[in-house]
This record gives sequence, structure tokens and C-alpha cells, in this order.
Amino acid sequence: MPSLNPAVAELRRAVRAAVADFPAGSTVVVALSGGADSLALAAAVAFEAPKAGLCAASVTVDHGLQPASDTVAADAARAAAGLGLDALIVRAEVRPGADGPEAAAREARYRVLRDAAQDAGAAAILTAHTLDDQAETVLLGLARGSGATSLQGMAPVSDLDGVPLLRPFLAVRRTTTEAACDAQGLTPWRDPHNVDPAYARVRVRSSVLPVLEAELGPGIAEALARTAEQLREDADAFAEMIDETIEDIVEPAEAGIAVSVAALAANPPALRHRLIRHVVASEFHVSLTRTQTLEVARLVTDWSGQGPIDLPACRARRVGRMIEFTASESGL
Amino acid sequence: MPSLNPAVAELRRAVRAAVADFPAGSTVVVALSGGADSLALAAAVAFEAPKAGLCAASVTVDHGLQPASDTVAADAARAAAGLGLDALIVRAEVRPGADGPEAAAREARYRVLRDAAQDAGAAAILTAHTLDDQAETVLLGLARGSGATSLQGMAPVSDLDGVPLLRPFLAVRRTTTEAACDAQGLTPWRDPHNVDPAYARVRVRSSVLPVLEAELGPGIAEALARTAEQLREDADAFAEMIDETIEDIVEPAEAGIAVSVAALAANPPALRHRLIRHVVASEFHVSLTRTQTLEVARLVTDWSGQGPIDLPACRARRVGRMIEFTASESGL
Repeated sequence: MPSLNPAVAELRRAVRAAVADFPAGSTVVVALSGGADSLALAAAVAFEAPKAGLCAASVTVDHGLQPASDTVAADAARAAAGLGLDALIVRAEVRPGADGPEAAAREARYRVLRDAAQDAGAAAILTAHTLDDQAETVLLGLARGSGATSLQGMAPVSDLDGVPLLRPFLAVRRTTTEAACDAQGLTPWRDPHNVDPAYARVRVRSSVLPVLEAELGPGIAEALARTAEQLREDADAFAEMIDETIEDIVEPAEAGIAVSVAALAANPPALRHRLIRHVVASEFHVSLTRTQTLEVARLVTDWSGQGPIDLPACRARRVGRMIEFTASESGL
Repeated sequence: MPSLNPAVAELRRAVRAAVADFPAGSTVVVALSGGADSLALAAAVAFEAPKAGLCAASVTVDHGLQPASDTVAADAARAAAGLGLDALIVRAEVRPGADGPEAAAREARYRVLRDAAQDAGAAAILTAHTLDDQAETVLLGLARGSGATSLQGMAPVSDLDGVPLLRPFLAVRRTTTEAACDAQGLTPWRDPHNVDPAYARVRVRSSVLPVLEAELGPGIAEALARTAEQLREDADAFAEMIDETIEDIVEPAEAGIAVSVAALAANPPALRHRLIRHVVASEFHVSLTRTQTLEVARLVTDWSGQGPIDLPACRARRVGRMIEFTASESGL
């Protein structure tokens, strides 16, 4: 008997660990584009799910954005069915959004995945994001420069409106998924978007990461992924601290919300700035920039009678021992 | 009267803000290599110090590592004296260290600067690190992949064995210091090390940052500096939390120290992992890797009777309700 291909073995182990805690009889749903990563995931799930007593399905989302997207989806579904999965194709309606076409397609894809998972009563959705995807995400976040939040990348386990979303391949290199497809005679779809330099992610993959590896050493993708993991821990810790204190330090204000100056002053800057951003985001659904956040913080730490500060959707001013955030005229 | 060159004006403003709080009669010391950054700093300090009632000196460190280093130092000191500074040259003895020749030279330089500042009774040392230096530091930290600690870059104000170390140019681009030298007729020394691709920092400057700027947009250096600032805030907040709790959760152990399992368990992972690293670093003067830290953390969060864990200079084991760290045989 030939020994098991190491790439195939690595992916199966990763899937086995990810689904270990689901009760027998549960269904897991693989998000399947037909590319090498998700095709290799489908194969690993098809192998591991029955051994764990689980049912396995795949959902292929047809965005209808590329010519012959229906053929691509049909090929992917046929491959999944050939592997023994219950293979679904769902058409997504991409609604134009403020954050560009890539974000709109991603949002539509996750909406459709969630609906399909809920329809199937699934215990989880599995996506095939790899360590390379994670490294690219960190570099794209670095270019935004908004600190730990933009560098923390993707979580191995997150929540999609109540459905657990698992990423079992976050510690797996993309070369491994490609090798696993090869070894199993699976022919992945080559998404032309993946080589189109119009996309920042493609430029990171084809130009930025290779230069970083050449100049700083071959471990750079792993280092970026490790950084993301640690920064996610940091962000989680701060989120927990905010959850524990937020209710005690805010009170309703007319057309808005007010936060205690003393509480903001007592916290270190990292927490003070996050509290300010958190209050504005939850009340007005906008995200403050670093500069705006620091200007609001000066109402606490550098108070000399400044006037109100105009922010997106709201304005901030100090009223006695509180910082008041009220909806701005245009924001009403 | 010709209007003031904007680069010169920007640097003077930065210095003015940095020295604003020193009492009249204090002395500030400029760390001067003779390169564009530090020469421009010397010029800005020479202009601003007298207006603030301060005395200003420059210290040029001659490492004796390059041919004609004495001539380079003499030229720098002559330029500083011409600007009106009290210009010193100090010879540094570079002791070989475990972290390579660059680190050894840096350590020797800071030691000499500190001694010279203390001899002069100086209120502060000023170095000319720019936003570009900060961005390079972040990218070098990224390649190490040790999270917020390695990405936080340099602080605008830090402490060098009791002497405040100020970096007034951390928000200034390197092109501005060069323009300011030009405008003031100052001829900077071009350090051949600054173009030697044997140094990782030089490769970051000449290859990595230009590719990042070309592929991800021209604001990348600023984004990296902004990221450093926010991660430094985060690191400071965690350090403050550790300071507040550490004494209550540790107790001496034979040839080591023990930490409460309950306290480690009660904290979020970001703080738990930092507490573990902090205890080992303060007791045994070694730095744990991420993998080692996580293995120790599993004695808390995933306890199933594991044996002792061998770490650099010490070993960790769970003894009842404590994690004990004791000096290893070879570490004694």
C-alpha cells in the first residue's frame, strides 16, 4: 500500500482537529469556490466527516459576476459530489456597497453561506483560508495603519450570525493545498481574479510577499501569521475589558450618549481610545480615525475649554464630568 | 527677507515642542553622527535651545569600526561647533555581544551617550530617528513575528538609565532632514553602511519599502509609524496591568518563583501569556518564544498531568495550585 501523501495527511489532520467536538449526526458545510484551497478542503472533509459521524455538504456560491460563472460553479459542485459531499450551488445577488465590489461580493457570499448553513441545520461552515491568505491580510491591514485591529487577520473560529465559521487551514501553506489536489487527482479552478493586479491582494501575493521573503528571510509568511494571532489575543483582551466596564461608565444623553471623564482618564490610553471608538461605533455606526479619536481624548486629558468636535455622524463635547456624543444635524 | 524654508521650519517646530518643558539653564545633548538626520537635528537644536534658555551640546561617538572614523567624527563635531553647539567627540569601545555587531555598536553608542549626558548634567539626549527609521523598525519587527512587542518601534520619549531620551523627529520624513541640510548649506556625511545590502535595515529601506509604496500606496511609511504608535500604547497598557497584579500572584520557590494557576486562568490569554513571559524574563533573564509560552500556558488551561517543561535557563511545572519556575541545572 503506498504511504499517504504528506500534504493530504496534513490537511486531514487539520480538519479532524477542527471538527472533533461536533456531536455525531451534525452537518458541516464547506465553502467551495473550486480553487485549490477549497477543493482540498472539500476532499479532506469528505474523508474525515464520515469517520467522525458527521454529514458533509458543500456550498458553491455563483456570484454571476464573471462570464461562465455558472459553469465554474457546476464543475466545483460536480467535483464535491464526486468526493461524496452533498453539493449545493446557490446564486448570490451582489448589492453594490460603499466599500467596493470585492467587499460587496464577499458580503453576498457570506450571507448566502449563512442562509444555506441555517437551512441545512449545519453545526458549522468551514472555509479554506490558508496561512498565505492570513499573511496577505496582515500586510493589507498594515497599509491601512489602524493598529492591532487591522493587523489581527482572520480568526480560526468566528461567528457568522450564530453559525460557527471555522478556518482549519490557517496554519497550512497554500503550496500544501495545491500539492494535496495534485496527489488526489483533483483539478482546481484557476480564478482569473487571482492573477489580476487590479486587486491589492493579488499585488501583495505576487510582488510584496516575494520581496519580503527575499530580503528578510523565508519565514516571513509564518511571522505575519504569528503576529496576527498575538494581536488577535490582544484585541480580544481589550474587548473583554470594555465589555466589563462599558455599562458602568456611560449614560444616555439627549440624541446620544455620554461617557464619564473620570473613567476615561483612569484608563491607560490604549483602553481610553478603544472606549471612545467603541461608544461612537455602537451609538452612531461609524468608525473614528486615529486623529479623530485623539482629538476626543484631549477633551479628557488636555482640557482647556475646547469647543465641540465635529465627527462623522455625531459631535463630541465636554459637559461637566461627561463627554457627550450627540447626533449631528446631517447625521439625523 | 527670504521666507523660512519649510523643511527647516518643520524641524525647528518639532524640536521646540520636544524641549518646551525643560527649565531654563538645562542642557540638552544631541546624538550626532554627522548624517543628514542628526546634522539637521543639531542645526534645529542650535537655533531653538538659546530661545528656550537652554544650553546645547553634541556628542559624536567614534566607534573606531570604519577606516577614518576619526575624521568623520571630527568633521561632524566641527559642523556642530560651527552651528554654536558645545561639540564633544567620545571614543566608544565596542564589546562583542551575542546579538551581532550592529547591536554591539548600538549598545556601545548608547552607553557613551548616557555617560556623556550624565557628565554634562544634561536634562535629555535627543536623537534624530525619523518616521522612515520607525517604518523600517516596524518591518524588521514584522519579520521576527513576535507580535506587538516587536512592532511597537521606538518611543518618542524613553529612558536611558535615568536620562530621558527624546526622538523629536519620529513624525518627520527623512526627505525633510535632507532638504533642511540643503537649505542651510550643511553637508552631511554619507555612511557607507547605509547603502550596504549586508544589513537587513538597508534592504528594507532600498527594496522592501519602495515595493510596499508602489503596490499598496504612497502612505505606507506613515501607516507603519501609526501602527507602531498604537501598538506601543497597547504594550504600555498591558505592562501597567502586569505591574498592578504581579506582586499578588507570585511567591518565591526554591531556586525560582511560582505563579498562581487561578490568577493566570482568570486573565485573558493576552495577559496570561505576557505574565508568563514577564515572570521568566525577570527571574531568569531569558525571553520565551511564542511556542514555549503557549506550552507553559497549557499547564494552566489544558492540565492533564503533563511533566515539567524544559525552557531556556529554567524549567516549568505545575505543583498543585501554582506553576513553579526553577533554575535548570545548566542555568545555575
